[in-house]
Amino acid sequence: MSKLWDKGQPLNALIEQFEVGDDLVYDNQLVEADVYGSMAHAEMLERLGVLNAAELEEIRGRLQEVLALHAAGEFRMTPADEDVHTKIENYLVEHLGDAGKKIHTARSRNDQVLVALRLYAKQKLLEVEIALLSCAGTLAAFAAEHEMVPMPGYTHMQRAMLSSVGTWAGAYAEALFDDRLLLRAAYELNDQSPLGSAAAYGVPLPIDRQYVADRLGFARVQNNVLYAQNSRGKGEAAVVQALSQVMLDLSKLAQDTLLFTTAEYGFFTISDAMVTGSSIMPQKKNLSMMELMRAKANVMLALQQQTMGVLVGLPSGYNKDYQETKRPFMDAVDLALQSLAVVDLTVSNLQPQEERLLAACTPEIYAADRAYELVGAGVPFRDAYRQVGAGLSELPPIDARESLRRRTHLGASGNLNLPQLQATIADEGASARQKLEALKSHWQSILSKP
Amino acid sequence: MSKLWDKGQPLNALIEQFEVGDDLVYDNQLVEADVYGSMAHAEMLERLGVLNAAELEEIRGRLQEVLALHAAGEFRMTPADEDVHTKIENYLVEHLGDAGKKIHTARSRNDQVLVALRLYAKQKLLEVEIALLSCAGTLAAFAAEHEMVPMPGYTHMQRAMLSSVGTWAGAYAEALFDDRLLLRAAYELNDQSPLGSAAAYGVPLPIDRQYVADRLGFARVQNNVLYAQNSRGKGEAAVVQALSQVMLDLSKLAQDTLLFTTAEYGFFTISDAMVTGSSIMPQKKNLSMMELMRAKANVMLALQQQTMGVLVGLPSGYNKDYQETKRPFMDAVDLALQSLAVVDLTVSNLQPQEERLLAACTPEIYAADRAYELVGAGVPFRDAYRQVGAGLSELPPIDARESLRRRTHLGASGNLNLPQLQATIADEGASARQKLEALKSHWQSILSKP
Amino acid sequence: MSKLWDKGQPLNALIEQFEVGDDLVYDNQLVEADVYGSMAHAEMLERLGVLNAAELEEIRGRLQEVLALHAAGEFRMTPADEDVHTKIENYLVEHLGDAGKKIHTARSRNDQVLVALRLYAKQKLLEVEIALLSCAGTLAAFAAEHEMVPMPGYTHMQRAMLSSVGTWAGAYAEALFDDRLLLRAAYELNDQSPLGSAAAYGVPLPIDRQYVADRLGFARVQNNVLYAQNSRGKGEAAVVQALSQVMLDLSKLAQDTLLFTTAEYGFFTISDAMVTGSSIMPQKKNLSMMELMRAKANVMLALQQQTMGVLVGLPSGYNKDYQETKRPFMDAVDLALQSLAVVDLTVSNLQPQEERLLAACTPEIYAADRAYELVGAGVPFRDAYRQVGAGLSELPPIDARESLRRRTHLGASGNLNLPQLQATIADEGASARQKLEALKSHWQSILSKP
Amino acid sequence: MSKLWDKGQPLNALIEQFEVGDDLVYDNQLVEADVYGSMAHAEMLERLGVLNAAELEEIRGRLQEVLALHAAGEFRMTPADEDVHTKIENYLVEHLGDAGKKIHTARSRNDQVLVALRLYAKQKLLEVEIALLSCAGTLAAFAAEHEMVPMPGYTHMQRAMLSSVGTWAGAYAEALFDDRLLLRAAYELNDQSPLGSAAAYGVPLPIDRQYVADRLGFARVQNNVLYAQNSRGKGEAAVVQALSQVMLDLSKLAQDTLLFTTAEYGFFTISDAMVTGSSIMPQKKNLSMMELMRAKANVMLALQQQTMGVLVGLPSGYNKDYQETKRPFMDAVDLALQSLAVVDLTVSNLQPQEERLLAACTPEIYAADRAYELVGAGVPFRDAYRQVGAGLSELPPIDARESLRRRTHLGASGNLNLPQLQATIADEGASARQKLEALKSHWQSILSKP
Repeated sequence: MSKLWDKGQPLNALIEQFEVGDDLVYDNQLVEADVYGSMAHAEMLERLGVLNAAELEEIRGRLQEVLALHAAGEFRMTPADEDVHTKIENYLVEHLGDAGKKIHTARSRNDQVLVALRLYAKQKLLEVEIALLSCAGTLAAFAAEHEMVPMPGYTHMQRAMLSSVGTWAGAYAEALFDDRLLLRAAYELNDQSPLGSAAAYGVPLPIDRQYVADRLGFARVQNNVLYAQNSRGKGEAAVVQALSQVMLDLSKLAQDTLLFTTAEYGFFTISDAMVTGSSIMPQKKNLSMMELMRAKANVMLALQQQTMGVLVGLPSGYNKDYQETKRPFMDAVDLALQSLAVVDLTVSNLQPQEERLLAACTPEIYAADRAYELVGAGVPFRDAYRQVGAGLSELPPIDARESLRRRTHLGASGNLNLPQLQATIADEGASARQKLEALKSHWQSILSKP
Repeated sequence: MSKLWDKGQPLNALIEQFEVGDDLVYDNQLVEADVYGSMAHAEMLERLGVLNAAELEEIRGRLQEVLALHAAGEFRMTPADEDVHTKIENYLVEHLGDAGKKIHTARSRNDQVLVALRLYAKQKLLEVEIALLSCAGTLAAFAAEHEMVPMPGYTHMQRAMLSSVGTWAGAYAEALFDDRLLLRAAYELNDQSPLGSAAAYGVPLPIDRQYVADRLGFARVQNNVLYAQNSRGKGEAAVVQALSQVMLDLSKLAQDTLLFTTAEYGFFTISDAMVTGSSIMPQKKNLSMMELMRAKANVMLALQQQTMGVLVGLPSGYNKDYQETKRPFMDAVDLALQSLAVVDLTVSNLQPQEERLLAACTPEIYAADRAYELVGAGVPFRDAYRQVGAGLSELPPIDARESLRRRTHLGASGNLNLPQLQATIADEGASARQKLEALKSHWQSILSKP
Repeated sequence: MSKLWDKGQPLNALIEQFEVGDDLVYDNQLVEADVYGSMAHAEMLERLGVLNAAELEEIRGRLQEVLALHAAGEFRMTPADEDVHTKIENYLVEHLGDAGKKIHTARSRNDQVLVALRLYAKQKLLEVEIALLSCAGTLAAFAAEHEMVPMPGYTHMQRAMLSSVGTWAGAYAEALFDDRLLLRAAYELNDQSPLGSAAAYGVPLPIDRQYVADRLGFARVQNNVLYAQNSRGKGEAAVVQALSQVMLDLSKLAQDTLLFTTAEYGFFTISDAMVTGSSIMPQKKNLSMMELMRAKANVMLALQQQTMGVLVGLPSGYNKDYQETKRPFMDAVDLALQSLAVVDLTVSNLQPQEERLLAACTPEIYAADRAYELVGAGVPFRDAYRQVGAGLSELPPIDARESLRRRTHLGASGNLNLPQLQATIADEGASARQKLEALKSHWQSILSKP
Repeated sequence: MSKLWDKGQPLNALIEQFEVGDDLVYDNQLVEADVYGSMAHAEMLERLGVLNAAELEEIRGRLQEVLALHAAGEFRMTPADEDVHTKIENYLVEHLGDAGKKIHTARSRNDQVLVALRLYAKQKLLEVEIALLSCAGTLAAFAAEHEMVPMPGYTHMQRAMLSSVGTWAGAYAEALFDDRLLLRAAYELNDQSPLGSAAAYGVPLPIDRQYVADRLGFARVQNNVLYAQNSRGKGEAAVVQALSQVMLDLSKLAQDTLLFTTAEYGFFTISDAMVTGSSIMPQKKNLSMMELMRAKANVMLALQQQTMGVLVGLPSGYNKDYQETKRPFMDAVDLALQSLAVVDLTVSNLQPQEERLLAACTPEIYAADRAYELVGAGVPFRDAYRQVGAGLSELPPIDARESLRRRTHLGASGNLNLPQLQATIADEGASARQKLEALKSHWQSILSKP
């Protein structure tokens, strides 16, 4: 099919290939969003009198067809289609004639793309939040199951003080739980409707931007038409930034897991279905997925850099450079979803080795505890510290589990507050699932008459 | 003074230099925060019975002295002090003996540093929000003043459609206004108290973490002790991420300003006090500060990369690597504050050149408008588009201001909604200033008896 | 087919998907390299007595088959194949039995991958150098064709001094020409044979590493077996670094081209086959490919960051993290090759608009020239500068072409030395093409008896 | 003193602060380079007749004074000086009047800055190469001293095959040795003289660019005047790229060292003068400098990103944005020099713990060796691999040192070729020191009559 702007002169093939690249692979994920956006826009055009009622219903029918074809894997794009937006408009024109030719009234591909990306962002942020809370829940359950298993706590990669498996896993559950704050800020930024901003300069027609915003389930209209366009990449970057924080948490867990499953630590084992082997050393059991997880945090940071680097110093209004934010944005979403699933599964397959863990709780990790005992006996801490430091070799044996229980302040090994954490994670997860369902229902309803 | 952990063996000088670096310059900005954190901790120790009432008041007095010395520029650190936390503890020991030696009971430098960075982050985020809203206000006022001055709207750096100076400046006002959403998420992440997590493994004493959190004005306790330490860098990264978005907006404005003040565009002039000259070309007037602003967005992204790159794959518990997140974090804050002030000032000094702007509104930018007129006459948009495209040279003259007024939908040139935008910006600015004042008062009150 | 390390327990499907990802797409580009590496290794094994002469020739025949299947697009990998190296070994085992099972003697997938990536790197660096020199040649020819066309020279995006189209285009020709220095350093780093380092710890067999290095056309053996493995990613990073410099040059050219084709500058036009249009504004002619080029430099820097970020802090020996350097490395190569072709084509389609260029050479750009005239009359430069600065409005008209000719020192507009530049570029291009042909012949000869 | 371009209107203070920033701190390192560049330029001006012989000698004398003042720490810049180049010109004008005012004839601050940065780059690259080869020498000596001490070789952080301390340390010696290839490419790129390109558009005077290039010891003139300016940042980026590769090698060594000194590995100990302690745990000995080293690789990558990110999409000619490449460039040089010294010292203080190392060579690391034995007995490797894999628990004991010796192929534990490596490193080090001395002598000679 022809490009929307076709003027009769074919575009050089090398240039076309350079410009389209693998954009279509990504656009394939935007078919539904573009259908919803187009439908809301068509309804508004009908209220404006640009389309009549019959045309509107024809369009509704054809857009339902597009969704059905897409679901069946039969709505495939080719480079000549340029992008998903052109492909859908061309489909309408081909099947409807004039009604199809009218649908681009009062919009531009610029705001069309913006709408599709916002709908995609909202859905994916909720999906990530659900996966995040599932993973946090698995970690909290793991913490509860092994709450009082002693393990050395490390600083500077050296044994420092007594800790517990419950503390270790609970720390990650809380970290992931906190990440939802950043996901939600990104959601709020994306939850505004750019539709009607057209090419960034509005249109000389009395369109109803509030109507389409409501129909698409946006919290509000993004007001200034130029700002709508200038914010291309901004919402996407906010998503990738939030996901980057998630990946940092996962990379830390990966590093811990890799260390704790070495022969030298031996704190955890993992089921054979999770490991890979070597082509040359028959004994090897490698946690390759955790090595990849560590590396993937760097991949995510590179996606963050790419998404944002492209935006530096772009002048106002649409610039084709923005296309280069789509791929890292959508890759970032896929990476985060996949990574959360992998970590969720990995944690479910870890087995603490209590004997090795306890054996690693060597006397020196109680040095600070011993200093606190002296504090209890009235010695100023700094003096107690020096006194214990001078007699490290004479530290008496200590019962690890007893010692864990004695740390009773908020958040310490004897008071991790895991049941409440588990309950809150479950509540928030249920709420995110509900929100996603509501959003999807709202969108599907656009394809029914209003 | 000696290091807290001094064991009699001096640290190699090269290693010391490598480890301290310019950290002290940054620590100098944390004196107040450490004093507040230390005071809250001391109060808690007194309630626990570790300090008696007299010791507590001695400590309060000496910490007041530290603040006074710092305010007078006389509390300078040297490499031998290692860091601000050591320096302050050493000061107390030196002047108070045992009372000073007791203050480190039940805390570690790890949670001490975390507290100081959180207090710093909260204060600076509010300062940035104030500067951000001031700059947004200046832009909105500029938009209101020149609301109906026509200017070409660009896409792909090519003249596209009619726009206005009001639309242009209003777009930036709204962009900055949106950035506060990200600042606030970063604030919420930082608004939890790590105090009492000690070296990440808690302490075997019944400390009251909620008390110190309340005294320091934190919204809540950060529960899991290991998570508190593992989150080192996470809150900082969230701040730098939010600031990165601000800088992207400013870099776009910088690029526009640079283009619009070239001889070729000539849309804006700027007062001579803002420009620099050339060593060799006597005629030059350069907007160097806008070029720097464009570059500084890249600097900020590098700070973001550094802050987050350091965190990838660090195992649980404190690692010295974290020190390398402090410098980019604090540099990012300074950069954002300075940049907002510079842009605020720059916008105040811009003068639109109405004649040049109008002259640039050449007939082809009305092509889409003309297509819409045909739509009004019943021609399907895609046909109208082709029809106008074929007769570009015959487009009739159009009155630009009249045309601007006719774009009446939400957010278009004739309906920018600037008065409400200005009012909201002013309200939010007042609220941020109030919040900052309240925070400072709360902190200062810690130095009085509770 | 089964994995090389298969132990009977199937790998979890989610983990498998996470680990293989789109790696196979990239591996598809390494089939030839792995065949060459395997063949050289097999020859060496025969000299060692591990294979007999008949087995060697069977292997040679089957590897020729692999190449033929690959050329016909029939050697496709599936996730179950794990990677290209497994696929090829499995192919040999399937068709040859014991001879196939012997080929992995004294090597590991680790050194196998290293060899394949080095061969790929060497070939691609030569291809990039050829494309680079072609593009430099096009620019030099463009410079020669329009050598004396006046154009303003800019500093700070403001008109500064008189320049010429020859100077402008020649600057890019020389920039690209310099980039080959960096390509060649990357080549030298990659031009050492890792084969025989096995899993990084060598093998207890008297293998002949020099023989395989010579057979594969490497300049030398990479000696230390652990260094061979530790250098995974290092050679790749050096390639991406060199390509990043190329992309920076291209992004500058893109920005210039975008500016110079705006309505405001109007210095260049470009043929219609190179531009794209707008879905809403029928008049638009956009140089989208130059906007993308600008953005792609950021993409390349993100690839550089990814390739290198993954390497930070990896412990000695192979880590699966390295897999994440393959994709950005190979993407970077493809991006550079495509970008050079696009710029080459773009420059060929630019047309300087002499009238607009001359009109932009407004009197103030001669201010420095006028100051030099006063210097010629004995006025100290700094005084002349001030004198001219005070009388900017009275500068007399100057003949631009005459003035260009009068700049006769090395590298100035009147002495750009273009013929020699063109000759050198042509020579170097021929030499790179020759080197690439020789390399390919050398490799193909491995499939014949030695 | 006044700015070179001063037109009577003072620059706004906030803008001045934003533009100068801490640039002067960095400029302080460029005093010598600017003096040499100015002197060469002055000599050329005398040959051109702009200066007479007496004026030239006065300038020579005053520039010698500047060097002497600088050496005494008395040539300090203030923000009002703008930069080192202005400061030096102002000094000459103040003391010499007309002769000083003439020195800026036929040059611009643009080429002046370029010259200074190139001279700085050349000197620093040689200093880094010397430090690099010293560190490589220390590693090679360490390898030789402990050549046959067995240690497990790791892949995927799991014990894999037998290795040796000699192999481990030798791998790093070779890695650093290879890095000099990249340093040298960066050197070659910087080894061309930009002097005479002025503001990027040359001058209408018959200056002798070859003369000044020779006087300053450049290998050649950078021809095209605009390319000279467009290459600002390019040479700097090449330096930072090469240093980034060095830092990646050091970060790997840091990670290994951190792992190998944990309680769990216990392979190395380090002298007490190298470690730091904890404020709360009296037993701790932390290798903080190695943690920092790991983090500093990320810092370096951020510097690389900053240096290069700033360059993306800058239009031709000088843009103030370039100033933001100076700081990361010079920081990168300092960081690399310091890091190499720290690693050099650290390696000198490591002590292998032979018993722990040998104890870690557990039977399974000989699995591949055992498979090779079966290969020796005629079993195809893939079958031997499966056979050994099935009987891992029955592997017989093996003499580690004997086994190390039996790996006799190039680069394996029994044939590391350390004496030749040490000799080559020593030779290259001597040659780099010689080259640096020659360069410095050449520069100092400029201050004597030619």
